[in-house]
Amino acid sequence: MPKTEKYAIGVDLGGTLVKLGIVSRQGKIIKKTTVETKADGGPESVIAQIKYGVNILLHKNKYKLSGIGIGSPGTVSMKNGTVENPPNFPGWKKINLGKIIKKEFNLKVHIDNDANAAAIGEMIFGAGKNIDSFVMITIGTGVGGGIVFNRKMFRGEHGGAGEVGHITVDYKGDKCNCGSYGCIETYAGNAYLIRRVKEELKNYPDSKIWTFINNNPDNLTPEFINMAAENGDDFAKSVVHDLGYFLGAALSSVSNLLDISTFIIGGGVAGFGDPLFKSIKEIMTRRVLTPLRPKIKIIPARLKNDAGIKGASSLVFYNS
Amino acid sequence: MPKTEKYAIGVDLGGTLVKLGIVSRQGKIIKKTTVETKADGGPESVIAQIKYGVNILLHKNKYKLSGIGIGSPGTVSMKNGTVENPPNFPGWKKINLGKIIKKEFNLKVHIDNDANAAAIGEMIFGAGKNIDSFVMITIGTGVGGGIVFNRKMFRGEHGGAGEVGHITVDYKGDKCNCGSYGCIETYAGNAYLIRRVKEELKNYPDSKIWTFINNNPDNLTPEFINMAAENGDDFAKSVVHDLGYFLGAALSSVSNLLDISTFIIGGGVAGFGDPLFKSIKEIMTRRVLTPLRPKIKIIPARLKNDAGIKGASSLVFYNS
Repeated sequence: MPKTEKYAIGVDLGGTLVKLGIVSRQGKIIKKTTVETKADGGPESVIAQIKYGVNILLHKNKYKLSGIGIGSPGTVSMKNGTVENPPNFPGWKKINLGKIIKKEFNLKVHIDNDANAAAIGEMIFGAGKNIDSFVMITIGTGVGGGIVFNRKMFRGEHGGAGEVGHITVDYKGDKCNCGSYGCIETYAGNAYLIRRVKEELKNYPDSKIWTFINNNPDNLTPEFINMAAENGDDFAKSVVHDLGYFLGAALSSVSNLLDISTFIIGGGVAGFGDPLFKSIKEIMTRRVLTPLRPKIKIIPARLKNDAGIKGASSLVFYNS
Repeated sequence: MPKTEKYAIGVDLGGTLVKLGIVSRQGKIIKKTTVETKADGGPESVIAQIKYGVNILLHKNKYKLSGIGIGSPGTVSMKNGTVENPPNFPGWKKINLGKIIKKEFNLKVHIDNDANAAAIGEMIFGAGKNIDSFVMITIGTGVGGGIVFNRKMFRGEHGGAGEVGHITVDYKGDKCNCGSYGCIETYAGNAYLIRRVKEELKNYPDSKIWTFINNNPDNLTPEFINMAAENGDDFAKSVVHDLGYFLGAALSSVSNLLDISTFIIGGGVAGFGDPLFKSIKEIMTRRVLTPLRPKIKIIPARLKNDAGIKGASSLVFYNS
C-alpha cells in the first residue's frame, strides 16, 4: 500500500436514497451528498441519479481519486461489475453498473454487495482494523453478513458467501422470505422484532415501552425497545435477551463451521449495546465447541453514521 | 506435481485399530496391515504400535516413499505435528506424534485430523477429483466434516474448521455431547439413529427390520435399517427420509454461509444410498437461497474400504 494520501468515492446504493462521499484512505469523509434513488423509474433513472450524485462530489474536487466503490443490494458480480435483481428495484434484471460508471467518469469502479462492503469497511476503517479473521453481521430489516479470513473476503464459489441471515436455528420454525424455515433472520430481523413486541406488549400494560411509543404501537422501533431495556423494563430486557439467545445459537453454528471466533455486529440492532452483546457472548460460550469457548469475541461495528459510504469507498482501498 | 511414480504410507489411527498401507500417487494400495491401537496402555504403547505397523510395511519395501501421512482423532496441529486429547485415548494429553515418527523413520510426516484426511482423500483420489470446492461430511458415530475451497482445505483460525456435526438444526433440541443443543450430530449420528429406531420399532410389529435383526433389537445396525428401506419397508423408509430431512436442513445452512454447492457424503450412513441422497437433495433445493438451488449436488464418497488409509496417505501427496 503506497503511503501517499489517496481518496475514493463511496456510493451507498439504497432502495430510497443514494448516499455518496469522498473518503480518505484513513476513512475520513471529506465531502458528502445524498440523492434520491428514483428506483421506480427503472435502471436508467437510478443510473442517472448515481451519475448526478458523483458529479456533485466532483464539482470543484481537488483530491486525487483512486476510484469509485459501490455497495449495492442484489446479486453482484465483483469481477464483471454486474448487479442482478436488487430487491425493490423494479425492471432492473442484470445491469453492468460497473462498466457504465467507469465509462462516465474514467475512474476504476469496484462494486460489491452491501454486506461485503460493510465487512470490508470494518476491516479497513473500523472495528476489524487489527483483526485478521472475523464474521461481520449487519442486522437491519434483514440479517446480512460477510466473512473475512486472513484479511481477505471469503466469497465462496459464486461470490455469495456470508449469508449468515439464512442459517437455520429451528428447522421447523417460521417461514422465511427466502423460502426456508427458521432462519435467524426470522428471529432477529427488525420486522420480526417489531411484530413480536407488538403482539406481546398488550400483556405488559406497565412496560416502559408504552411511554416511549406514546401508547401507540405503530410508533414502535428497535431503539424504543432498547431504551426501555436500558431503563430496566423487564419485558424489554427479556426481548433483548431472547434476541441475543437466537443470535448466539446461529453464530455458534457459524463459529463451529468456520473456526472463526470474532464477530462484529452492525446495523440498527447493534445500537442495543452492551446487554445484547453480553447475551450473545454468554450463549455462544455455552454452545460453541470447547476449544473455541475462551476465544469468542462479540464486538460492535465502529462505522456508524455513513457506514455505507465508508464501506463502499473501502472497496477501492481494499483492491488497490 | 512431478510425474515420477511416488508412494506414501498412510496411517489411519483409530481408537481400537491402527490401519496402515503403502499407497501410490494414483491411490492404489500396494501393501497393507492392521495392528491393535492398545490405547489403554497410554501414549507410549500407541506410539510403539504405530512404529510396529510402519515397520511391517517397510519390511522388504522396494518403493520410493515420499512420506508418512497420519489421520488422527483429537485436536491436531498440522504445523507442529501435535495430537491433543484424542477421545478414548487415556493419558494422552498433547503429544508431538509427527516429530516422534519422523525421527524414527527419517521420512517427512504429515499429520491432520481424520475428518480433514477424509476430505483430502476424496479430493486427491475420490469423488472430489474434479471438483474445486466441496464440503465433505462423514457420518459415523458422530458427524465430521471438512471444507475444500478452490482445491485447498479451509482450516479457519486454529485449524478446527469444518465441524459440520455441530451445526444446530433446532436451538432447543436434544443435548449434544459437545454441550450444545440440537446439533445435527444428535439427529444423524449412528447412536441417535439406532436409539430412535429401537424406541419406535415396537410400534411397527410388521416392519421388515424385525426379520433382519432376528427379532433382537440389540442386533440393530444402520445397514439393517437401509436393507429394510430398500425392501420397501415403510417405517425404515420414513427413518431414511427423516435423516435426509435433518441433514438437508443442516447442509442448507452450510451452503448459504459458504456458497459451496457440492457435498460429498461418506461414512456408514453413505451406504444408505440413493433414497438418502435424494432426500437430502430434495430438502436442500427447497431450503437454500434461490441462486444456489439449481447448483446443489449431493454425491457419495468414493473411497469406501481403506478410506482411512488412503485419506491419510493423501496428506503426503496434498502437501508435496
